[in-house]
Amino acid sequence: MEQLLRVMNFNVSRDGIGAGEHQSLEEPFGLPRPERLFGWAGATASWPTRTEPGGSRGLDDCFTRDFARNIGAEIMGRNKFGPQRGPWGDHEWRGWWGDEPPFHTPVFVLTHHTRPSFTLSDTTFHFVGGTPAAVLERAREAARGRDVRLGGGVGTIRQFLDADLVDTLHVAVSPLTLGSGLRLWSSPEELLDRFHLEVVPSPSGVTHHLFWRR
Amino acid sequence: MEQLLRVMNFNVSRDGIGAGEHQSLEEPFGLPRPERLFGWAGATASWPTRTEPGGSRGLDDCFTRDFARNIGAEIMGRNKFGPQRGPWGDHEWRGWWGDEPPFHTPVFVLTHHTRPSFTLSDTTFHFVGGTPAAVLERAREAARGRDVRLGGGVGTIRQFLDADLVDTLHVAVSPLTLGSGLRLWSSPEELLDRFHLEVVPSPSGVTHHLFWRR
Repeated sequence: MEQLLRVMNFNVSRDGIGAGEHQSLEEPFGLPRPERLFGWAGATASWPTRTEPGGSRGLDDCFTRDFARNIGAEIMGRNKFGPQRGPWGDHEWRGWWGDEPPFHTPVFVLTHHTRPSFTLSDTTFHFVGGTPAAVLERAREAARGRDVRLGGGVGTIRQFLDADLVDTLHVAVSPLTLGSGLRLWSSPEELLDRFHLEVVPSPSGVTHHLFWRR
Repeated sequence: MEQLLRVMNFNVSRDGIGAGEHQSLEEPFGLPRPERLFGWAGATASWPTRTEPGGSRGLDDCFTRDFARNIGAEIMGRNKFGPQRGPWGDHEWRGWWGDEPPFHTPVFVLTHHTRPSFTLSDTTFHFVGGTPAAVLERAREAARGRDVRLGGGVGTIRQFLDADLVDTLHVAVSPLTLGSGLRLWSSPEELLDRFHLEVVPSPSGVTHHLFWRR
């Protein structure tokens, strides 16, 4: 069984921006706040961090309910874990994801700085360096035959794309222009030399971009 | 956790026909053969009965890879199991689904005629009578908290819709007219009094219809 590396439910603006700059503890997505990129997902019935009943079960929900299906591990950039830079000063603060992180698998956080692994509920965070290929090998082993989710952010996805390790990408493009911030692409067409692309507009206003390897 | 009853990857023609008439052992889908309804699903990477590598991973694949996610049981009409009518004459023939049925859960086959349960690989077939509500209750119990798939055919889906037991439907409408056969609806608009509807055209030519309860 093939073990895919998958980008899932990643959000960018019409001009390709996935996060603001100047990330901090108070501003996990940086400034200007790109929070309008995420509304489509939170409105669905299956969004993993939904706490209230209800929500839509149309096209957008097909993507959010796929979040955990056949996923055995996640790889994320350090900035998706927390705002710290350089050596880890404070081991007490254990990331943005609370006591019940929505991952429920091993998570590999990319960093040049060592830190002991720890477990919150059924999610274990490992802190790993090395090449994208080496990290993916560790994540695949931990995933025990299941796929690996590449969680972002922008820099992490770019790094794994540059190493040609990504098998599928689902990117939701929101109908707004942010102007500045961290950019995934100038245009989705940049990936067409290596990927098939289907572009699927949703009634919610986002446009789902589905890429898979040629 | 809510346990949904879900119609998934059900196929009809533009004129609402899901199967031919005069079903037989040689013609599981009746005549005229409606096989052109199913092509979109077989072309995807995640179609459960795919045997070769490859296949598309675009929009259509989002639906086929959802086939088993969080499903704990299936309910199917007798005609989806086999072409027999009346009392079960032959217990040796064990349905159309081979030694490795794609369900991997308990399956409840609707019939007025008793027959012992049996297991093929990790699928157990039970043969049950009673009202749709009573059958659904048994299936929910067997599903142990997971959702229940309502597998069809047309008559079975109609029966559960009439009893107002269906929570979500995904119906793929193919761009062809069959003229005669077993009809799910005259128009998808018949369901709009009870369901939200999103209509999503796919590059493959089918149009996905996604219904969920109001």
